[in-house]
Order: sequence, then C-alpha cells, then structure tokens
Amino acid sequence: MVRARVQLLLGILFLASLSVSFGIVHREHQESQEESDSRGQNNPFYFSSDRSFHTLFKNQYGHLRVIHRFDQRSKQIQNLENYRVVEFKSKPNTLLLPHHADADFLLVVLNGRAILTLVNPDGRDSYILEQGHAQKIPAGTTFFLVNPNDNDNLRIIKLAIPVNNPHRFQNFFLSSTEAQQSYLRGFSKNILEASFDSDFKEIDRVLFGAERQQQHGEESQEEGVIVELKREQIRELIKHAKSSSRKELSSQDEPFNLRNSNPIYSNKFGRWYEITPKKNPQLKDLDVFISSVDMKEGGLLLPHYNSKAIVILVINEGEAKIELVGPSDQQQQQEESLEVQRYRAELSEDDLFVIPAAYPVAINATSNLNFFAFGINAENNERNFLAGEKDNVINEIPTEVLEVSFPASGNKVEKLIKKQSKSHFVDAQPEQQQREEGHKGRKGSLSSILGY
Amino acid sequence: MVRARVQLLLGILFLASLSVSFGIVHREHQESQEESDSRGQNNPFYFSSDRSFHTLFKNQYGHLRVIHRFDQRSKQIQNLENYRVVEFKSKPNTLLLPHHADADFLLVVLNGRAILTLVNPDGRDSYILEQGHAQKIPAGTTFFLVNPNDNDNLRIIKLAIPVNNPHRFQNFFLSSTEAQQSYLRGFSKNILEASFDSDFKEIDRVLFGAERQQQHGEESQEEGVIVELKREQIRELIKHAKSSSRKELSSQDEPFNLRNSNPIYSNKFGRWYEITPKKNPQLKDLDVFISSVDMKEGGLLLPHYNSKAIVILVINEGEAKIELVGPSDQQQQQEESLEVQRYRAELSEDDLFVIPAAYPVAINATSNLNFFAFGINAENNERNFLAGEKDNVINEIPTEVLEVSFPASGNKVEKLIKKQSKSHFVDAQPEQQQREEGHKGRKGSLSSILGY
Amino acid sequence: MVRARVQLLLGILFLASLSVSFGIVHREHQESQEESDSRGQNNPFYFSSDRSFHTLFKNQYGHLRVIHRFDQRSKQIQNLENYRVVEFKSKPNTLLLPHHADADFLLVVLNGRAILTLVNPDGRDSYILEQGHAQKIPAGTTFFLVNPNDNDNLRIIKLAIPVNNPHRFQNFFLSSTEAQQSYLRGFSKNILEASFDSDFKEIDRVLFGAERQQQHGEESQEEGVIVELKREQIRELIKHAKSSSRKELSSQDEPFNLRNSNPIYSNKFGRWYEITPKKNPQLKDLDVFISSVDMKEGGLLLPHYNSKAIVILVINEGEAKIELVGPSDQQQQQEESLEVQRYRAELSEDDLFVIPAAYPVAINATSNLNFFAFGINAENNERNFLAGEKDNVINEIPTEVLEVSFPASGNKVEKLIKKQSKSHFVDAQPEQQQREEGHKGRKGSLSSILGY
Repeated sequence: MVRARVQLLLGILFLASLSVSFGIVHREHQESQEESDSRGQNNPFYFSSDRSFHTLFKNQYGHLRVIHRFDQRSKQIQNLENYRVVEFKSKPNTLLLPHHADADFLLVVLNGRAILTLVNPDGRDSYILEQGHAQKIPAGTTFFLVNPNDNDNLRIIKLAIPVNNPHRFQNFFLSSTEAQQSYLRGFSKNILEASFDSDFKEIDRVLFGAERQQQHGEESQEEGVIVELKREQIRELIKHAKSSSRKELSSQDEPFNLRNSNPIYSNKFGRWYEITPKKNPQLKDLDVFISSVDMKEGGLLLPHYNSKAIVILVINEGEAKIELVGPSDQQQQQEESLEVQRYRAELSEDDLFVIPAAYPVAINATSNLNFFAFGINAENNERNFLAGEKDNVINEIPTEVLEVSFPASGNKVEKLIKKQSKSHFVDAQPEQQQREEGHKGRKGSLSSILGY
Repeated sequence: MVRARVQLLLGILFLASLSVSFGIVHREHQESQEESDSRGQNNPFYFSSDRSFHTLFKNQYGHLRVIHRFDQRSKQIQNLENYRVVEFKSKPNTLLLPHHADADFLLVVLNGRAILTLVNPDGRDSYILEQGHAQKIPAGTTFFLVNPNDNDNLRIIKLAIPVNNPHRFQNFFLSSTEAQQSYLRGFSKNILEASFDSDFKEIDRVLFGAERQQQHGEESQEEGVIVELKREQIRELIKHAKSSSRKELSSQDEPFNLRNSNPIYSNKFGRWYEITPKKNPQLKDLDVFISSVDMKEGGLLLPHYNSKAIVILVINEGEAKIELVGPSDQQQQQEESLEVQRYRAELSEDDLFVIPAAYPVAINATSNLNFFAFGINAENNERNFLAGEKDNVINEIPTEVLEVSFPASGNKVEKLIKKQSKSHFVDAQPEQQQREEGHKGRKGSLSSILGY
Repeated sequence: MVRARVQLLLGILFLASLSVSFGIVHREHQESQEESDSRGQNNPFYFSSDRSFHTLFKNQYGHLRVIHRFDQRSKQIQNLENYRVVEFKSKPNTLLLPHHADADFLLVVLNGRAILTLVNPDGRDSYILEQGHAQKIPAGTTFFLVNPNDNDNLRIIKLAIPVNNPHRFQNFFLSSTEAQQSYLRGFSKNILEASFDSDFKEIDRVLFGAERQQQHGEESQEEGVIVELKREQIRELIKHAKSSSRKELSSQDEPFNLRNSNPIYSNKFGRWYEITPKKNPQLKDLDVFISSVDMKEGGLLLPHYNSKAIVILVINEGEAKIELVGPSDQQQQQEESLEVQRYRAELSEDDLFVIPAAYPVAINATSNLNFFAFGINAENNERNFLAGEKDNVINEIPTEVLEVSFPASGNKVEKLIKKQSKSHFVDAQPEQQQREEGHKGRKGSLSSILGY
C-alpha cells in the first residue's frame, strides 16, 4: 500500500513533467518539432517494448510479461483502467505449465502455432491455434499452452480484464517451480492430508518434490513455469487437440481465425482484417473488436478516427511512424484545448500504442509491416476516414457548410477533398512513388508480404 | 495533473467548509433557518447559472459551456461521475461548425428551432428539431447545428457521457478558427500531402487559410465556432433536412418529441411530460428518462422521491423554490444520520439542481415555470408521492402500521393523509387561493402558459 | 470529507502494518506459523462480528448494523467497492418501521420468520418469509419487517448495492423516533401545510408528536425504529400477507426459498444448497448467487476455487476454520508474487469472510455448522475443486502434463490425485474418523443437524 502510494506519487511527478514537456504546441505547424522527440519517449500513448513492460517470468524457454497500467500514463485514457495487456513468448517444443488467473483473457496468436488446452471441472477442450486465431479464456479457467513446433517461436498477446481488482490480476500455478510456489502448498498439512486422503510426506514427495529438493539431485524442481517437452509428449497432446470431451460445448466457444475472413479494406498498399462483436459471440461478450493489418513499406493508413472504440495497437512485424492528434495532457486540465497536439512515435516490433476514441490518427509503414489491434468498447464503432474516396466523413458534409467552415470557396474545398482517388491505404510519398515505379523496386517487396 | 491535485485539494477544503456550514440541523424544525441561505449558495446540489459553468466557447453569436463536475460537489452524488451537462445557445441564422466529441450526447431543444445534421462515413441525416425534441448523438459522430430562425434564439441542453475518461470529453473541430485549431492541422506536412494527394501550400491555403491570415484580409479566419449563415445557405440546408441519404436508417434513430405525448400528470396547477426508456430505444440505450414540466405561478409539486433515478433538473423559464431532504454531507461520514437536512434553493432560468435517488423533494413555482429534467439510472424508476390522492406511497401503508409509526391514532393519521384530495400539483397557498379565486386574478396568468 | 480523509489515512497505515505482519511466507511450509494469528486478526478477508460492523441502530428490540467497507481492507477485493452487507436482528413480536433506502437490497432470512411488506405507490405486497427465503427489495421501495413469532428471534442479512454513491446508502424513515427524524420533518411549514391541506399544528401533532413530546407523557415518541407489536396487530398483518393488491405482479417478483430445491452437493459430511442467476430472475438482475451450506462437526469442504465469483460468507451457526490461498497484500504491489500466502481464520457466529475469485479455499467445520454465502459476479461461475472424485479440475489434466508439472512420475501423481474417493465434503481427520466409527460417537451428532 505504501509502495503503491510512492508509485502513485512518482506517477504524478512523471505526468507533471510530461505536461511541461508537452507545452510546445502547433501554432505555426512547425515542422522543426517533428525532429525532436522522434522516438516518442514522452508520449503517454506510446508503450515501448523495452521500457513499458513488467516481466512476470522469464527463463531460457520464454517469458511472460505485462504492460504498465494504461490509466497511470494519462488521464486521457483513464477508461482503460480495467484492461491490461500480457505478452507471452516461448521457444519450440515447450509448455507453459497449468495455471489459472483472476482475469478474463482474450488470447491471440501473433506468430507460430499453439496447442491451447482449457481444463474445466467436467472435462477439457484442446485446440490447435494458428497465427491470427483468437480465443476467450474465461476467468478462473485452468489452462496450459504448448508450442508444438520444432523451429518456430510462439508469440501470443492477451487482453486481460481482472475480476477482483480493476487493475491487478494474479496467476495461480498448480506446480511448484523455482519461479513460484504451487497454490496447493498454501494449505496446511492437515487440510492436505484430509483432502488427498494421504500422508503429508507422500503428498510433499509427489507434488512438491521435498526430498529431491533437499538432495539437489538432477531431477530437481523445474526451473520455471515454461518447460521443455519431448516430441512424444507433444504428439500425444496433439492427438487429443481439437477434440472435446466437455459437455455442452458449442461452436460459440471455439477459437476463430481473424485472417480467414475477407479483408474489410484492401489495395496494393495494405489489407485490413477485422472481427467485430456482431460477428462473434466471444467478442460480443467482451465488447472488443480485433484487427490484423498488413502494410507495404511506404504505405500510409489515411487519417481517420474511431467513433467510440479505444484501440490498443501492437506492432507484430516491421516498423512504422504514427501520428495521433488530440488535446495536450496539460490543456485537458482546462477541459477544452484551443490548440491540437501531435503525438508522434516511431514504432518497432513489440511496441504498443493506444489510440483514444475520436482522436484522429495516421500510420506510415516505414518497412513492411503487420500490426494487431484490440478495440475496446467496440459495439457499433465506426471508423471515420478524413481523406480518401470511401468512408470519408468530410466528403459527406454539404458544400454550404464546407464554404463557411474553411477559408477557400466551397468548390475549392470540395476539389481538394475529392482529389485523393484511393481509399484507406495510399502511398506515403506519391511523387517519389511515380519515379520509383519505373524500376518496380518497392513493388517487389510488397508482393512478398501480401502474397500477391 | 498537478493542477488537478490542487483542484482536488480546493475541492476538499470547500467540502470541509460546507460540512461546517451545514452543521445546523432541524431538531426544532426552526422556520428561522429558512430565511438564511435562501439562494442556496452552499447547497451542493444547486448549480447556479452564473457560477457553476465553465465556458468552452463564446462569441457574439452564442456560447457553449459545460457544468462543473457533479461528483466534485458532494459524495452524495458520486455516481454521477460519468455524466456532464452542456448548454448551447445561439442567435438567429447561425451555424455551430462541424465537429465530433469523445462522448455520447443526448441533445434536447429547450427553446427555438434547430437543424441538426449527423454526418457519417456513409451518408448524413438532417433533422428539423422543435422545442422538446430529443436526439442521441453517438460518440464520435461528426455533426453541425443550424439556428434557422430569423428571430428566435436557440437553446439546447446536452447530457454528455464521455468514453475515454469518466469526466472529461473533448470537442474536435474540423475548421481552424480564432477559437481553436482544426484537428487536421495536427498532422505533419508529409501526411497531409500524401492524404490529400496535393501540395502542402495548396492544402494550407484551402483548409487553414495561411495566406489570408498573414495578409489580415477581410476574409480572414472565422472568429469562432459559431458563425453567421446567409438565408440562401439556410434555405439550402432546410431543403435537405428530414430526408436521409444514409443506409439502414430506422425510425429508432430519429428524433422524438417529449411534448407530443400526453402528460403523465396534469391539472390546473401543472403538466408533466415524460418519455422513459421503455418508450424509446435511444433512451433505453442510455438508461435515461427525460421530463418537461409546466407549472403555474403559485403551484406546488407535491413532496415525492424517485425510487432509483438521479435527476438533473434544468430551469428553462421562470423561477421556483425547491426543498430537498437528505442527510447532511457531514453526517453521511458517519454512515447514518439521525437528523434530516433540508437543502433549499431559489432557482431561476438556466440554473441546475440535482435530486439524488430516494431523497424527498418538493418544488414551489414562484412564477410561471417550465423545467426540464434528465433522469439517470431510469429503468423501472417509480415516483413515490408522499402527499396527495394518487401515487401516494403513504396511503398504501396499513392502518396497524401507521398506528405504531406515528404518535396519533391510526384513524387520525389516515384522516390527515387523505385530506389532500388533489394529486401531483396543488396550490402552494391553499387558503390564499380561495380568497383570490373570487377575483380570478391568478387564474388568468395560468391559462396563458398552459394554453387552457 | 476531512473525516473521510483521516479514515483513509488510518486505513493506509493499517494496510501498511498488515503488509509487514504478513511478510512471513510459506517457504518451508512451516506448521509453526499456524499457531500464531489463529483468530485471523490481521487477515484482510476476515470480518469479525464484534469489530467489523458499524451499528446504525440498536435498542432492546433489536439492531441494524452494516459491515465495514470491503474495498478499504485490501486492494485484493477492490471490485467489492459497490457492495455493502447489512445485518438485522429483532426480538419476537416486533416491527422495523416503514422506510426506504438509496440502495438495492437482496434480503435473506437466516433465522426465524418474517412478514416483509413492500409498499409501492400503486399498492403493496406482503410475504411470509421462512428461513432460507430471499427477496430483492428494489432501491427506493418503502418496506417494513415484522417478526411475528412469539419466541424466535429474527435474523436477516442484506446485500446492499447503493445507487447514489458506490459505498454509501441512507435509510429514510417515515416516522420520527428518538433514534432519527421523519424525512417529512425536513420540509418547511409552508410546504407541509399545502401538501396535507392542513394547519401545521395539526400535522405536527399527528405526525411528529409535538405536544406529547413536550409533556413528556407516557405515549411519547417511540424509542427507536424497532418497536413492539401487539398480537392483534400481528394477526391483522399476517391475514393480508402473501396476498397481493398490486397490479402486474408476476411470480418473478416473489420471494424464493434457497432450501426448497435439492442440494447441489450432499453426503454425510455436508449439504450445499444454491440458487444461481440462471434459476432466478431476481438473482439474474443482480448477478448474484446465494448458497446455504450445512456441515457436520469434523467435516472438511475440500479445497476449491470459484472461477469468477467473489464470495461473501456469513457464519450462521457454529464454528469453522478457514484457509484461503492467495498472494500477500505486500507482494501484490509487485504485480506477481513468487510465494503463496495462507490466510487463516477461526470463524464463529455472525463472522464474515470474503473469498476472492480464483483464490483456493478450504473450510473445516469445528462444530456443526451452517453458513450462508452471497456470490458476486455470479453468472457462469464454476466451482473448481482441487481434490476429491467429482468436479476436480486436476483430474482433467492429461498425464503427460502432470508428468512435467510435478516432481513425481505421471502415474504416481495420478495415483495420489485419485486416492480421495469422496467428493466436495470429506472427513477432516480421516484416520481418527475410522477409529471413532467403532463407537459411532460423532455420527450421532451429525444426523441431528442434517436430519438423516
């Protein structure tokens, strides 16, 4: 509690210093400012892979880590206070040991392949998940995760919604390892003896490894919660995957693949896959949408805003520059800002970025890029583009209103707005593109990632 | 953040001083206390028009302002923390420029006439709203508002439910004016050039007015977010109003008029119009009811309480005295108060008053009066009257229980309770009324407002 | 507010000291620690009957008291912040006077019999409730409670979900007694005269007892909110009970009895009765389950966890030892604890204990025992047992995974897990039990409470 207070105070000091450093605003649309702060270090919406995670567990087989609290970064995203994001990576032929947590999880496979087994009091369900597969793991469900591949690492991202406390959740592991104790060890000798109808020495030997631990023998306690599996063990586990022994399992509870459906936007610069609450009952239950977006190097996702969803974006592969437009943290104190603030960041693999609802954003792929996104508060969300032919909200404003909204005449404004003939994804450097199209240099690299 | 802390500290000091000033309680039912504090200055439920609003924008054509946070006034209404109230007024022949916000709005026309246009990526819907019309504007919807009348001011009240933060929301305007920057200006030169497929100089000229601004010419930037419209422009906008170009629009999404239905209570002292979540899908979605109440000068809305709704009352026309009964802020610290506190205020136009759920309240119209109300947490709310013939909860208590609940005999209590033969609205000074009815002085002024 | 701050500071100091005292963890599975702290005084989940309640009212006929705030005890149960628990006890032939509150209540009869009358503006509903009966009282409903028995005390527990503030609620009594004022007294003389169409002196005499109070006569104000009733009065009230004069009452709104259905678990050591949101619309509305559990002296409720429900347990009769396993308050600051903490308490009549979702728990009945429980966040909750034959989640983990999870071989682990042939309730001292079964000593005491 005292620690939390100190953390809070540090958070306040951090935010106070943020407000000062963001005091510079865009009166003159200064391009000079873009040079400074280019990695987005003081940007409250930017969560870098190397400095914004808390490692829960790490050994030679992989790691499990959780992102810092969103609501402690900026009041502008306080309504994310009930959400956390967890990243899990594991090497080939490994197992994340059985455990449960006091949080609902929405698990998504970013890379590699997994066997996910959900264990319930009346049976278990085992699924083989490929890249793009998503699955809700209800709070308190005991589960374990296998990376069955011989060569590929497994990378998983989980959205966590805790049940006992808005921000915190706890993993309860069944096994004692060097990294943590079995939750069964929390019970007293008497309770354990009566529960297992066995002598405590036997229980201690079989479940907790008392003797071997003392002997420091070769078969001592596991080094941690991610362990190696033999191929025979993996074969046995795969055999039972996808089949279900549990009663009353409906297809509603099964994993679904984000990348099996048709992209909602697609052209030569990018493809956008998305599943909304309307299309999937697990997502409806959580009020979350999920997206996976491929972009070509040099592509630009046109400026747009989400009408009501707060988006948590995770860079899966490649690099990008992002620009978000909103009030400054300092100005929000005064409830209404006169000037808009540009929040920039250069994103690379494993970085996160939060896009508040209604804040305009644009993304420039500086290499071939794949990013994943959770959209919180997703039901009936509409993506409002601010440029391009389709889904462009500005196109729908009548001329009479454009006339009085902008300094030029209505006709000139309409001409400017309608000049961009592409939609959603465009070339970030259109003139340069024309020059380069002569020798087709970049187009080749595009087809390799988009599979054209 | 530091500012917020100071604000919080000031808030605490303010509430602490409140507790002290409310230390006087009604042991003796002292009428003397009624004389003091008659404007309700220290009343945490009273939000005066002149001191409880923060102005977001103001020019010669109108203003936009937001009420102070409800939850910072008193812990007794902390559950209003996710709600804000916005007031908008504009002169004849004006336009509130296109913008969107990170909040759901429930918009109600208190006075005048408006053309409300909701712009979506796939089309727009334009409606003519008269007094009493209500419409939900979902978060992130771009919209603009015209006062098409040549003579009448437009007055609108909006309930705001922010999506990124419980208390705060931000308006995002498309145009740059002297009052605020266009959100499009937040993007860098490169992004804007690629998005509009145009040179930045052209974009700057057409959308932001760079040149003209520098020349200080006659057609410079608009003075603010409320601008004048020519009659031809208004005629063109009216032409398209009420027709819809948007796909899949159902009548559920259209505006509805509070005063078109039959009043739920009506007699010669007043009329109560109300739409509940059961009757309208937009209100069901927000769990809000809306009411509009006319009262004659000298009328009394009988003591009653709402079973579960927290009511935000806005005085539209006229003046009233209100009495609210609840625990004192000081006593609530001790979790149960022994004595009840009377919270009084004299309300006039544009004042707000919050009535917590279950707190008894009575309203005395000291002039002809119209007030509007939002009821938060409205589903299945029941209004329990404490006097009068109909809807009187005390009337339903059996005699045996009245007998032991009050000092007089059950019969005497029943006789007192049943003496008032009117319901809902009565004369605030019944004896004086009888005298006055001889020369029909006040009855004339009644018919003029109620249209009898 | 100042008081609240001081309370908060004290709370922080208390929690800080807790963290220190819980610094001792179970590295060595020390049985010695079990001896200390045996009453669970520093256990944040334990709410003792004598030190964790705030008395709202007390006289010779009974009392009304509310438990301390759950969320101020530990961050681990912060999501209980919107819930309070109220205990009501009354002597035979008494009445709790008519009142309403700004909270939804879920009322359960733990002992005795009650006539509950819900009064609404359009009628009233009167029910006779026996032990195990539950009934939702919607916020703002005026109600009164009679103990109609000549000999038995009435004991009621209420779950309260406040509507104006997350933590606080207020009772509004209709009558003035020595304990509190009538809310009607909060209105001014003028309002009361116009409302009741009567002279204030008459109102004061009939409703507030002005004259008699001054004379200090024998029929003065009631001593408090719990009053004696004559047998004739009770007979009259019983006559109308169970019949309903209210319009549109459906059976959905009527009380339901927890102990009328078949137990979900039952053997010679215990019986578990439960109604879930799926089975009852009132519980669905509140997202709460309710349980009533009988256990034999010496019985053990096997270690288990609730997948998502937070359980508030109330000891109704008898005594028990409870062991809860979770992270320590101190360690939770670091977001992940390496070691598990055992939270023990010895519970007796009227004590409460909170079991967070996903935290393993076991209960040992040290006398014949009956406890009641509210489960918050109940929909689709699953009880995962960690030992025993049925509903045991560990039984469903495949051998290959058990093999790598525990130090012993998969076969040895399975053998240990499957040794316990009973389910849910077992003998807490199985060897001792076998010895005693020779002379059938304890079995006799079992049948007396379970009615075998």
